[in-house]
Amino acid sequence: MSVIDLNSDLGESFGVYKLGMDEQVIEHISSANIACGFHAGDPQVMNFTVQLAKKYGVGVGAHPGFADLFGFGRRKIDVSPEELENELIYQIGAMEGICKANQVKLAHVKAHGALYNLAGADSVIAQAVARAIKAVNPDLIFVALAGSELEKAGNKEGLRVAREVFADRAYNADGSLASRKEEGAVLHDFNQVAERVARMVIEGKVQAKTGEDLEIYPDTICVHGDNPEAVKLVKRIKEVLHGRGIKIKPLAFILGLV
Amino acid sequence: MSVIDLNSDLGESFGVYKLGMDEQVIEHISSANIACGFHAGDPQVMNFTVQLAKKYGVGVGAHPGFADLFGFGRRKIDVSPEELENELIYQIGAMEGICKANQVKLAHVKAHGALYNLAGADSVIAQAVARAIKAVNPDLIFVALAGSELEKAGNKEGLRVAREVFADRAYNADGSLASRKEEGAVLHDFNQVAERVARMVIEGKVQAKTGEDLEIYPDTICVHGDNPEAVKLVKRIKEVLHGRGIKIKPLAFILGLV
Amino acid sequence: MSVIDLNSDLGESFGVYKLGMDEQVIEHISSANIACGFHAGDPQVMNFTVQLAKKYGVGVGAHPGFADLFGFGRRKIDVSPEELENELIYQIGAMEGICKANQVKLAHVKAHGALYNLAGADSVIAQAVARAIKAVNPDLIFVALAGSELEKAGNKEGLRVAREVFADRAYNADGSLASRKEEGAVLHDFNQVAERVARMVIEGKVQAKTGEDLEIYPDTICVHGDNPEAVKLVKRIKEVLHGRGIKIKPLAFILGLV
Amino acid sequence: MSVIDLNSDLGESFGVYKLGMDEQVIEHISSANIACGFHAGDPQVMNFTVQLAKKYGVGVGAHPGFADLFGFGRRKIDVSPEELENELIYQIGAMEGICKANQVKLAHVKAHGALYNLAGADSVIAQAVARAIKAVNPDLIFVALAGSELEKAGNKEGLRVAREVFADRAYNADGSLASRKEEGAVLHDFNQVAERVARMVIEGKVQAKTGEDLEIYPDTICVHGDNPEAVKLVKRIKEVLHGRGIKIKPLAFILGLV
Repeated sequence: MSVIDLNSDLGESFGVYKLGMDEQVIEHISSANIACGFHAGDPQVMNFTVQLAKKYGVGVGAHPGFADLFGFGRRKIDVSPEELENELIYQIGAMEGICKANQVKLAHVKAHGALYNLAGADSVIAQAVARAIKAVNPDLIFVALAGSELEKAGNKEGLRVAREVFADRAYNADGSLASRKEEGAVLHDFNQVAERVARMVIEGKVQAKTGEDLEIYPDTICVHGDNPEAVKLVKRIKEVLHGRGIKIKPLAFILGLV
Repeated sequence: MSVIDLNSDLGESFGVYKLGMDEQVIEHISSANIACGFHAGDPQVMNFTVQLAKKYGVGVGAHPGFADLFGFGRRKIDVSPEELENELIYQIGAMEGICKANQVKLAHVKAHGALYNLAGADSVIAQAVARAIKAVNPDLIFVALAGSELEKAGNKEGLRVAREVFADRAYNADGSLASRKEEGAVLHDFNQVAERVARMVIEGKVQAKTGEDLEIYPDTICVHGDNPEAVKLVKRIKEVLHGRGIKIKPLAFILGLV
Repeated sequence: MSVIDLNSDLGESFGVYKLGMDEQVIEHISSANIACGFHAGDPQVMNFTVQLAKKYGVGVGAHPGFADLFGFGRRKIDVSPEELENELIYQIGAMEGICKANQVKLAHVKAHGALYNLAGADSVIAQAVARAIKAVNPDLIFVALAGSELEKAGNKEGLRVAREVFADRAYNADGSLASRKEEGAVLHDFNQVAERVARMVIEGKVQAKTGEDLEIYPDTICVHGDNPEAVKLVKRIKEVLHGRGIKIKPLAFILGLV
Repeated sequence: MSVIDLNSDLGESFGVYKLGMDEQVIEHISSANIACGFHAGDPQVMNFTVQLAKKYGVGVGAHPGFADLFGFGRRKIDVSPEELENELIYQIGAMEGICKANQVKLAHVKAHGALYNLAGADSVIAQAVARAIKAVNPDLIFVALAGSELEKAGNKEGLRVAREVFADRAYNADGSLASRKEEGAVLHDFNQVAERVARMVIEGKVQAKTGEDLEIYPDTICVHGDNPEAVKLVKRIKEVLHGRGIKIKPLAFILGLV
């Protein structure tokens, strides 16, 4: 594999509140997951961010989450699958509206925060996410944690699934992400992270915490743009990937849709 | 004119809160304006109401309003045209998402409450409303108070405009609605209202408070389903219209689109 | 014991949305748990309901819940104890503000919905609830499910705890409420419920689902006013209690504070 | 006059969103106006900010605004005086709850943003603000634009009114603030602003845009802490005031209450 997508969560500002360095990180990534107003983002921020992505040729995705502005979508809410499905359809539809107004095609959907974590491990919730995406538009690419219930649910619904891995997170032996509460769960050495990403793309492998190699074959790698250090790390990853002849392209290209 | 559309505001419940007699009024109308979650409605209610409209063959419209759940969208908010445009695109998009999930075509858009009133008199706000509709989907029918700035804005943007009149409201000599604060602004006599509506449809005329006839030529008549009396009035209007050979049809039919 | 408090959840309307038959049930109860705006209620509704309770000599309590208007506070939110404590202090303070504006003393606090259930079984959450009450005003009465973690937490913090039982709910052998998902969890026979309540007050006992008697010694009995049937049940309970010489009095009286 | 209060709007963060340099500006001011969760702030932020003010011996005030997180309370909402009064009582009560939990006395109330501007010019709204403060606690100091309807309403209700002036804003000949839309409405020269403030305090005068001197006699001067430049300006003002022998003290001291 000589191409990969780099995705990042953007459009997380709200009203007067600024969050993230969207204008710095956008030039280094190929897909933007844009918050839809339930846990972050608002109609103005969504519109601005879609325009920013369009300007840089970055793929636009909806990044729906729990209805929890207080908790930034990081608190699990005990929602029924039916409620969740409608809440996601609503958010994806709203993002499609903003996209249409900017003559941009909505390319993908990725669940946010506590919803992403919950759905990764819970097949009922994962299927509600997959059904919501299919209900709005079956051509949308479904970004799912590689090997998780999200990936299984996407395949079951016949969606185009993009397997996601994380650049700077340690993996358990079973392919799940090490909990942020554990020491060493987040990798901080820039060179180590960049090399790790390159190996993920070239060999389809990553070394688990426990030493063994995991086969992961990613379609997209999640990177962050929250702070200057994060942006620098993305830049380094990009440089290392380019140095190995790996091209960074949006999901539609990775999945052979364009 | 031997056909007319009857529209009513539906889907105004929220969470556990029930509002309106949607299931009673739906069988008497031809177009439903469904709240989009900013002033009323939520994803579950929207989904339920779209399914209800589909079942009864009633045209589905988005009914966006100010972001004001506290005030049910009846309080004017001093929003900029740009903010408003994005807030409307968001709401219309969300409603389109819910429609797609139910294989229903979104037919029309009608502004709610304080926004409808404000935009009816303010050309800048009216144009923001029209631009928002066009941005999401230029084929959407724009329901506008007959003779108002909304109608002008819709025509200016090249939208399909449906001229709306009110069954039970008194009109001033200039064609505007008499303020609810004035005595006699709302008509309560069922027979008077039903006859008045029939004349609006057949002759295109309504008598103003001051006695003279106004030419109004409606495409759609707004009726209410808030309480048992309102539902009875709608039923009476329907009976009188049928008695005069007038058919009740959705907006797409009225405007010659189907 | 010849006196008991009857408490009911009131003030659950929001904006234009009406919920509950507050004006019917208020004359039959002695304590009102008033929603604080996070899961239901708003400043207008709170003010109206405090005035209603004042008029009927009913004790006023704060009824805080999770920040979840969408879900009416019935969905568990994975909140940290610190967050929860501040969210509760905020809500109790807001209710005290409304009380002060009406020259009414805030008498008690009772957690709502998913929070009540969660805290009843989770000592960490229960203690956060108790700390929040103590932080605003250590004289507030803490309404706690008899025998639950809420009661233990209230005692630990040195609060005045009112032991609450439910008129129409089946009990498990360990004193916990039977889950609403089980058949027979809610009792519907008016006479059975009223007799059961009378026995709770007179003997301090209730028969568990499994047949054995539980000692419960209630200070307050939760009744409902959601619909006409519920109001009739409250009336029946009151009649039976009065027939047995049991007086219905607010919590401050029950706990010997006035 | 040899003492003055410097007040600044603090606690305007929300959830994960940070706004303002509270921890930098707090050491230079004597009163903090803390947002109450309707336009900015949340229970956690309120609690943190009250603790910060306590640590620095800064007077704590409630800074209530319109219910408009989308618009940061800067958009006028067409609210009735009764609604507004209850919304303010709710917010002030919530802030008092947070203060009690920290053993801090709530000292003052200042309206925020669009509400401050609206109430400054509209006597009906101004009186609703004054009534709300009095209803919660008649001892609260009411911070009001000097010479405005707010000041008049505070005096009418018998509140302790603190006359507020703005350090860096141009004044019209009638004592009102020059609109931010006019050129020169905001003064940017640090020395000019600091000298202007010193003269306000020492002479009770400020020069209007049109050249003439206005008598203003301030009790408190509003300064900002939004950005590093703003914090520097506050520091400069403090230095100049100290150089002239003027002490900076909280409102309770200025009004002779402690």
